[in-house]
Amino acid sequence: MFNPFFKKHGPFDIGHLLKTSNTPNLENYSKIIVKDIKDLTTAEKNTITFFHSKKYEIVASKTKASFCITTNILSKLLPENCKPIIVDNVLIATANITKVFYADAVVDNFDHTVEFIENINFKNKIKYGKNVLIGKNVKIGENCSIGHNSIIESNVLIGDNCSIGSNVIIRKTIIKDNVNILDGCVIGKKGFGFFPIQNENIRYPHIGIVIIENNSEIGCGSTIDRGSLSNTIIGKNTYLDNQVHIAHNNKIGDNCIIAGQVGLAGSSILGNNVVIGGQAGISGHLTIGNNIKIGGGSGVIKNIADNTKVMGYPAKNLKNFIKDNK
Amino acid sequence: MFNPFFKKHGPFDIGHLLKTSNTPNLENYSKIIVKDIKDLTTAEKNTITFFHSKKYEIVASKTKASFCITTNILSKLLPENCKPIIVDNVLIATANITKVFYADAVVDNFDHTVEFIENINFKNKIKYGKNVLIGKNVKIGENCSIGHNSIIESNVLIGDNCSIGSNVIIRKTIIKDNVNILDGCVIGKKGFGFFPIQNENIRYPHIGIVIIENNSEIGCGSTIDRGSLSNTIIGKNTYLDNQVHIAHNNKIGDNCIIAGQVGLAGSSILGNNVVIGGQAGISGHLTIGNNIKIGGGSGVIKNIADNTKVMGYPAKNLKNFIKDNK
Amino acid sequence: MFNPFFKKHGPFDIGHLLKTSNTPNLENYSKIIVKDIKDLTTAEKNTITFFHSKKYEIVASKTKASFCITTNILSKLLPENCKPIIVDNVLIATANITKVFYADAVVDNFDHTVEFIENINFKNKIKYGKNVLIGKNVKIGENCSIGHNSIIESNVLIGDNCSIGSNVIIRKTIIKDNVNILDGCVIGKKGFGFFPIQNENIRYPHIGIVIIENNSEIGCGSTIDRGSLSNTIIGKNTYLDNQVHIAHNNKIGDNCIIAGQVGLAGSSILGNNVVIGGQAGISGHLTIGNNIKIGGGSGVIKNIADNTKVMGYPAKNLKNFIKDNK
Repeated sequence: MFNPFFKKHGPFDIGHLLKTSNTPNLENYSKIIVKDIKDLTTAEKNTITFFHSKKYEIVASKTKASFCITTNILSKLLPENCKPIIVDNVLIATANITKVFYADAVVDNFDHTVEFIENINFKNKIKYGKNVLIGKNVKIGENCSIGHNSIIESNVLIGDNCSIGSNVIIRKTIIKDNVNILDGCVIGKKGFGFFPIQNENIRYPHIGIVIIENNSEIGCGSTIDRGSLSNTIIGKNTYLDNQVHIAHNNKIGDNCIIAGQVGLAGSSILGNNVVIGGQAGISGHLTIGNNIKIGGGSGVIKNIADNTKVMGYPAKNLKNFIKDNK
Repeated sequence: MFNPFFKKHGPFDIGHLLKTSNTPNLENYSKIIVKDIKDLTTAEKNTITFFHSKKYEIVASKTKASFCITTNILSKLLPENCKPIIVDNVLIATANITKVFYADAVVDNFDHTVEFIENINFKNKIKYGKNVLIGKNVKIGENCSIGHNSIIESNVLIGDNCSIGSNVIIRKTIIKDNVNILDGCVIGKKGFGFFPIQNENIRYPHIGIVIIENNSEIGCGSTIDRGSLSNTIIGKNTYLDNQVHIAHNNKIGDNCIIAGQVGLAGSSILGNNVVIGGQAGISGHLTIGNNIKIGGGSGVIKNIADNTKVMGYPAKNLKNFIKDNK
Repeated sequence: MFNPFFKKHGPFDIGHLLKTSNTPNLENYSKIIVKDIKDLTTAEKNTITFFHSKKYEIVASKTKASFCITTNILSKLLPENCKPIIVDNVLIATANITKVFYADAVVDNFDHTVEFIENINFKNKIKYGKNVLIGKNVKIGENCSIGHNSIIESNVLIGDNCSIGSNVIIRKTIIKDNVNILDGCVIGKKGFGFFPIQNENIRYPHIGIVIIENNSEIGCGSTIDRGSLSNTIIGKNTYLDNQVHIAHNNKIGDNCIIAGQVGLAGSSILGNNVVIGGQAGISGHLTIGNNIKIGGGSGVIKNIADNTKVMGYPAKNLKNFIKDNK
């Protein structure tokens, strides 16, 4: 994953890493170098991963990570190459270790490095409004425009022929070519992910980013949160209407149409040619196939197979919805 | 329709118009002058219109347009005065021809003609905040205020005693007297209307505007999109709460009350005294009568007769909803 | 209620108060001093209150107010110490009398007293972005940051270790310690409360405020309205996701988790440890207990007892929802 946004600290000796993050080191590991923290699938040798639920059993059994934060019971399911780090609460330990690698990805304070665009080199090649703020190392292609009061934070990449509206905030995001971001959007803030603890929830770093592919459009006042360990992706030629909320880690395919006030709860995968009516909601961790129509106001709480039309709360096959509501 | 916002090109010779817009000219029309493109109802002599669905058969049979973009089959239903222009895809041809007349209504790039209000003549007669931006030819009545960071784009008209909040964006809009627009609204952006095409959807111009009648109020963070060929209208003394989305071409009557997070999908007509509970949604192309109550969270997918209370998803008579949910 | 935001006029002689507010004075009251207007419960001697619905019979019978705006019928239920002021429409008379005490709480015109933060004394102790505006008498604690284009209106109080995002508007609000307010929020605007009257609704003053307790977080683009006569409260360690709408007078407990696009209609009380799934809606004037889970998309229209899981529209016990939707 190309990710210009988060400075990764390390590598660390495993003993040092566990100590710094207040993680118990029951097996007294040391001397092995750990370069990064990754999810079970993308982890490689000399990285650390985490495994907190039996439903990830199959990917866990094949992980290439050198270490895995997990529970005593789940640790039996890991392959030999992967040494378990047994903890009481996998997610909290994972957050703590991730914070050592990515200290600056926990909160989203505003980017204080921005400058008025008048002070930036590329000001001559784009059309810009009043009071536009640009962070360090931002790159913008040919023939773009940025509206009034918009803020493009550090390291954001924008392709050619993009139109950014007014009052827009973009951070930790890669935007490809021919993309329109309409007024008032907030793109790339950290997701709504934390560990609920009485009196003081624990935030974890969000080191995923937002990627918006070619020819897409994001409607006014929409919010697209960046991923935690993976990215949030808007596919090619996918159009979002106003006031849409795309939570962290969602991956939306190409040629989708998402009407006003739709919400995606997080970590779902949508195929191509998915059409979603206004105010529909999609629960988290679902797989929505290709060529799907989801009626307005639906509440989708199960996976949807290819070439299906659904409607209802909870969403069911459209024919059944019509029959049941005659 | 009085419309100070879109420069209309033309008139054009019909042969030239079809050629410029890449529309087939099977009948080899030429020499007749076409002044504008209109819908079936408002079209006059020497204008062109379009007819794409049998459900508009009656209005089509009476259109006064000189030309009509349509299909071979539908063309038989046109009156004698109206010459058919036969195409495969009526909506795409309509978009292409509209673009010739209204080239600048396809996208909503920010208005780069705005100036800080300190440089505008009428600054002395209104109360304004910091960083207020005003476009060319904006007219504002007596006793108005405009909050910080708000942007009033070119040609917008605002009446007397209006209060515009902070961080508001207004374009292509006529606001009458005693209207409150609260913080963070985006009023008058183009609607979410386009022709879905694999890899690159086709946008069509939105030459309708937004009209907000006397004594109305629009809540924080609401979005009201302008119409495509007709206008989006908010009636007199109609109040919208926060985060409401009114899509293109909706026409809302007088004395309506629309609670938070309600969404209207587009092209519906609401009568007077319509009360809509929070988070309800109204599908497109519906007729909602007068003196209606729609319960919170309802999904309205059918027309509603006068003096009716409905609730549910899909919405049904309130008595039935209560009975069915005992 | 500590309330630094609204200048209270008075005290007034009751005869003068009724005359100024165009309220009938059938009993020819005079000479008794009235210091404030309060609700039935918090009213004390020498204050005026109102009583408009039999469902408040019990609190009305114990009110300590010296006067009560009410109807002829309800007036029989008042205690001896409380003299009735008989009117046709209690709520309109209440609005008119409240306006005499709190003339500046009826509308929310932008705060024209703000200054760029560069001109404010405390600029050295906080981290701030470009174009930040601060009203009169704002107090901010240690170690806070305020993002670009944000507006903190007069008299707002912010504690220690708070992070305010960009494009945020805060008015009539007290924020405690360790609170995050993310980009684009509007906190503290007047609620969507008015008396519907043909042609010109009557607004009433909102003299309640918003209080956000320690360790809480408010997601991007959320709106939290201030109360009318009581306050809107967000409890400790309560997290709101993006695009949430909290209407006036809601009181939310501690350790709650409220997902994206949820809406609360107003005047409801939520206990501690309430988890609300995305896009759910809570009707007005409900009591939601402690340790509650409300499924995404639910429409809650009844009170919920402690330790309950509900889902559905209308929301019912989760087990029943699952059974009914098998």
